[in-house]
Amino acid sequence: MERIPILRMGDLLLVTIQVDMHDRLAMTLQDDLTRDIIRFNAHAVLIDISSLEMIDSFIGRMLSNISSMSSVLAAKTVVVGMQPSVAMTLVELGMSMPGVQTALNIEGGMALLRDSMDPEFPEVEDDSP
Amino acid sequence: MERIPILRMGDLLLVTIQVDMHDRLAMTLQDDLTRDIIRFNAHAVLIDISSLEMIDSFIGRMLSNISSMSSVLAAKTVVVGMQPSVAMTLVELGMSMPGVQTALNIEGGMALLRDSMDPEFPEVEDDSP
Repeated sequence: MERIPILRMGDLLLVTIQVDMHDRLAMTLQDDLTRDIIRFNAHAVLIDISSLEMIDSFIGRMLSNISSMSSVLAAKTVVVGMQPSVAMTLVELGMSMPGVQTALNIEGGMALLRDSMDPEFPEVEDDSP
Repeated sequence: MERIPILRMGDLLLVTIQVDMHDRLAMTLQDDLTRDIIRFNAHAVLIDISSLEMIDSFIGRMLSNISSMSSVLAAKTVVVGMQPSVAMTLVELGMSMPGVQTALNIEGGMALLRDSMDPEFPEVEDDSP
């Protein structure tokens, strides 16, 4: 597979990272994402990393970059689904990922985005306790 | 990566297939999906295959199986994002994928599900022309 799919839901773009990232794939994702933010006038980007069991400085930097690029294009980025081991590694690596907001899961991420955005943001029923 | 992540949004489960499926991964996905349908009382499953550039009878059968299992558990399945080449291959293979509904993209899939479901289904703004 040559690229990571970007799913569009209203003015939200959703990316799930499932494969090991290498340079070219990361560049392609950044290109695709910035293009789609403009094309669809997206205001939010959700990146799900729940299937990543480890993270290195390369992925950390990529997430930071995506967040910065989105921010310049007036879109907010939320990284969701980080596993405990990944959180520990990030702290041990001393990576603070400036500008990257996180949430426990997709619904948390959507709630976070909704709170900080205009009322047209897609509504999702949340029946968690 | 050992498993394909299942994203939960309200009573909808979203799966994006990005990697080549093999037997064990397909079994794990079926297990996880049926477990999550019950655990979260999900009424709909959206499977995005937009990053698959080809499909074989194994994946076709897996999609059919997932759809049948979901149906038994009272959840509807919609496969979205099928590429033209995949559609052609399916027809050439003579695979009709009985019981599998399709839509062009996530938003189309959600609209399809919403039309056939109760009014609590998550709303997504659709501003496509």
